[in-house]
Amino acid sequence: MTAIINLNSDLGEAFGAWPMGDDEAMLDIVASANIACGYHAGDPLVMTRTVRSALAKGVSLGAHPAYPDLQGFGRRPMRLSDAEAEAMVAYQIGALCGIAAANGGTVTHVKAHGALYNAAATDESLALAIGRAIRGVDRNLIYLALAGSVMAKAGRSLGLTVAEEAFADRNYTDDGTLVPRTRPDAMIHVPDQAADNVLRMVQDGVVVSTTGKRVPVTVHSVCVHGDEPSAVALATTLRKRLEADRVRIVTLPDMMNGR
Amino acid sequence: MTAIINLNSDLGEAFGAWPMGDDEAMLDIVASANIACGYHAGDPLVMTRTVRSALAKGVSLGAHPAYPDLQGFGRRPMRLSDAEAEAMVAYQIGALCGIAAANGGTVTHVKAHGALYNAAATDESLALAIGRAIRGVDRNLIYLALAGSVMAKAGRSLGLTVAEEAFADRNYTDDGTLVPRTRPDAMIHVPDQAADNVLRMVQDGVVVSTTGKRVPVTVHSVCVHGDEPSAVALATTLRKRLEADRVRIVTLPDMMNGR
Amino acid sequence: MTAIINLNSDLGEAFGAWPMGDDEAMLDIVASANIACGYHAGDPLVMTRTVRSALAKGVSLGAHPAYPDLQGFGRRPMRLSDAEAEAMVAYQIGALCGIAAANGGTVTHVKAHGALYNAAATDESLALAIGRAIRGVDRNLIYLALAGSVMAKAGRSLGLTVAEEAFADRNYTDDGTLVPRTRPDAMIHVPDQAADNVLRMVQDGVVVSTTGKRVPVTVHSVCVHGDEPSAVALATTLRKRLEADRVRIVTLPDMMNGR
Amino acid sequence: MTAIINLNSDLGEAFGAWPMGDDEAMLDIVASANIACGYHAGDPLVMTRTVRSALAKGVSLGAHPAYPDLQGFGRRPMRLSDAEAEAMVAYQIGALCGIAAANGGTVTHVKAHGALYNAAATDESLALAIGRAIRGVDRNLIYLALAGSVMAKAGRSLGLTVAEEAFADRNYTDDGTLVPRTRPDAMIHVPDQAADNVLRMVQDGVVVSTTGKRVPVTVHSVCVHGDEPSAVALATTLRKRLEADRVRIVTLPDMMNGR
Repeated sequence: MTAIINLNSDLGEAFGAWPMGDDEAMLDIVASANIACGYHAGDPLVMTRTVRSALAKGVSLGAHPAYPDLQGFGRRPMRLSDAEAEAMVAYQIGALCGIAAANGGTVTHVKAHGALYNAAATDESLALAIGRAIRGVDRNLIYLALAGSVMAKAGRSLGLTVAEEAFADRNYTDDGTLVPRTRPDAMIHVPDQAADNVLRMVQDGVVVSTTGKRVPVTVHSVCVHGDEPSAVALATTLRKRLEADRVRIVTLPDMMNGR
Repeated sequence: MTAIINLNSDLGEAFGAWPMGDDEAMLDIVASANIACGYHAGDPLVMTRTVRSALAKGVSLGAHPAYPDLQGFGRRPMRLSDAEAEAMVAYQIGALCGIAAANGGTVTHVKAHGALYNAAATDESLALAIGRAIRGVDRNLIYLALAGSVMAKAGRSLGLTVAEEAFADRNYTDDGTLVPRTRPDAMIHVPDQAADNVLRMVQDGVVVSTTGKRVPVTVHSVCVHGDEPSAVALATTLRKRLEADRVRIVTLPDMMNGR
Repeated sequence: MTAIINLNSDLGEAFGAWPMGDDEAMLDIVASANIACGYHAGDPLVMTRTVRSALAKGVSLGAHPAYPDLQGFGRRPMRLSDAEAEAMVAYQIGALCGIAAANGGTVTHVKAHGALYNAAATDESLALAIGRAIRGVDRNLIYLALAGSVMAKAGRSLGLTVAEEAFADRNYTDDGTLVPRTRPDAMIHVPDQAADNVLRMVQDGVVVSTTGKRVPVTVHSVCVHGDEPSAVALATTLRKRLEADRVRIVTLPDMMNGR
Repeated sequence: MTAIINLNSDLGEAFGAWPMGDDEAMLDIVASANIACGYHAGDPLVMTRTVRSALAKGVSLGAHPAYPDLQGFGRRPMRLSDAEAEAMVAYQIGALCGIAAANGGTVTHVKAHGALYNAAATDESLALAIGRAIRGVDRNLIYLALAGSVMAKAGRSLGLTVAEEAFADRNYTDDGTLVPRTRPDAMIHVPDQAADNVLRMVQDGVVVSTTGKRVPVTVHSVCVHGDEPSAVALATTLRKRLEADRVRIVTLPDMMNGR
């Protein structure tokens, strides 16, 4: 039996005259795209371009809703009511669905962005609000959430299909959570170490923590970045190593259907 | 056989802390709501509130896409490429579809707002761009357009169902177009005159121009405003006069299906 | 010797097509206006209108900088770096100075708005960032700050003139801080009680807490609101009671100069 | 006697997380910076960074006001009332003055951006509105305007100091106006041709049109771009050629004072 995994990346993060990242390169590597919906990045033309490129390359489409904060790229924590968070996520998913439909595609997953993702990873109430928005727009949408988090649990409690996400370039603590970015050993910079990291998740169902402990994890999707040339290089190495080990890279819907 | 007509109004035009108009009063008068989508007015919470009120009162939902211009309320002409106009309209329709779905409703029509509506009434290329966005998102959406305009014709050329719209409070010229707002006789301020105006459209299929000429018109829907107490009063009178003459006020989908 | 006091109000909080509050009524009551600078409310035309009205009525001009959050009216807490807060406040003060100069006026004070004010009242680092922006733009600008707060202290530590502000319609605790808005007795709704409250501050230098304790306070300015008809009524009563007791209402620069 | 000329460039056009152009390289070439004020690009942190770099390199500061259109980078024509254009320009100049003051600098000129510049070059009413804003904020500010345009004339009619601007990389018609961008020969791509172009303006007071005609022009400042590596290369060549011919490159205030 072949092992399968999904690779996802945050794409469509240009805005107006400002480009960002190498989306075309990343769309050759990943199988699912989290597409900015205009709140932290993206605009209708950028979304259109990204949807078309993704569809042309067989990459599945996901909404990447965020706080309303272009200037801060959705990375600044904001305090919103749950009602507002829910409405705002439904708005953004819908907006991408509109652009996708107009270009012959369908949105199949949702992943919160930046400060919204970080907050929902630990704030159950917010994670549920996001989940209600997803379920409200279309109960077949996959909720892509941090593996093992409150967010993943909240999604399942609403009856949604939850895909658990890990990061290729992040180290893990003994309890299976991410090493905080404030620590010097938060990130993995060496492409082959990141690939080792992911292969263990896919083939053995574990991560090796910074102290060397093997911690069991469930991972349906691995997030790779494309904002820096070094990030693209890491993602390229990861894809090659996965292919060399005959791990098939599949879209998120296929992953959740075990295909 | 009973005459039928649709009444529509531009609603959900509050933004954040700023209210606008008496939406609750208007939702008791009209059968279809054109709901602002966040570009000229409206935000996810306002859209949610408006969708819920409309659904509770059996009012059908329409998207009211506009230029990206909150400060100018979408009333300032802007020059966008057709590709951008098309993408921007698909975005806004989708966003309202998301909010509608999350609240158990369905969007059934689209009407451009303000400067975008005015431009599309005479600019075929723009009217087609809007039409392609409508068709792209959902080919069953009704394109609500100025009666007799380039916009109405463009919508039909794309195979869309086009509802032709008149204004209760506007006078007409001999060739069946609206008297420009710059002329002193552009507006009808007396509620019963506006009602007479509409009854002639519905019952006789004509408007009487400012020179007294009877001009044939096809009208599926009449737009009434709710931004001023006097506008609400005019709409109330219109509804009473229509009911007194046994004209049934139906939603836009029902109107186009002849129910 | 005549007692003097400054009354201030948050004005110019319309935005584009959306009005807010009764600025003209309030400009007849207060002697200093905190004018929204486009981040939580206000736009160049609204600012122009407000500056002109204030100047015509002899009301001194203050900038009312806020978080960049029109949709949330600057009331949603955001987390910004101190460098960003400082730059953002300098931007907003400068913008109002531009509008003021173009209309023959001068900005003489600065008061943070909403969530920014609340955060700076207890966060010294943020209060200093705001203070550095004020000093950087013009060291003669008065820093209007919550009486007895960290913000007031931070302003003085930078060598700025700090005006300490109280609220006519708020109750106080035994330690001289405001009763939190979450408590049912936070607000004073009876105009004459609010006037009693302010007269004690002005004439006796004390507030009477909710338990009846007399707590010494230094107050240079009293904030009154104009967003509701009841708030305007309260402010009107306050002004009449102050005049009846021969308390002179002066601009903030006059207040700080003891004129 | 040494010839002198000013070189200016549009800088500070990053926004939030999105960089743009090579400002540091351009600040080593030009003597005056037109700094985006947050309407088409720029934000308080970007403005702060740009002001500091410019001051460190002895480059004079100018405001670069634009239409309120981040998504369109201020390049989309909008129709605003003159009152709104005037207020909007005063706002943006003031905002940059605030940031400049907070960093120990002074704004000395104003140049409209993009679609606003293009419109004001031929629309006298708009050019006057911009001029009134400049004069209103500070009558000593230099109005940097297209050489020979309605805008330049409008500025002088208001009593302002007007600096006439040419473009190093643009060809000219027989009547001394720019070859429209829609024509294939609009742009000069060869750095030495652009330098020849500028040297003739500076040393002989003429441009050579596309038909070979020598047309007299008055030029105080030459605009160079930094948004593309090829543009930076052209500007670098231009600076070298000017220096080789002993043309001194001076700030805009020095240029207008003949220093």
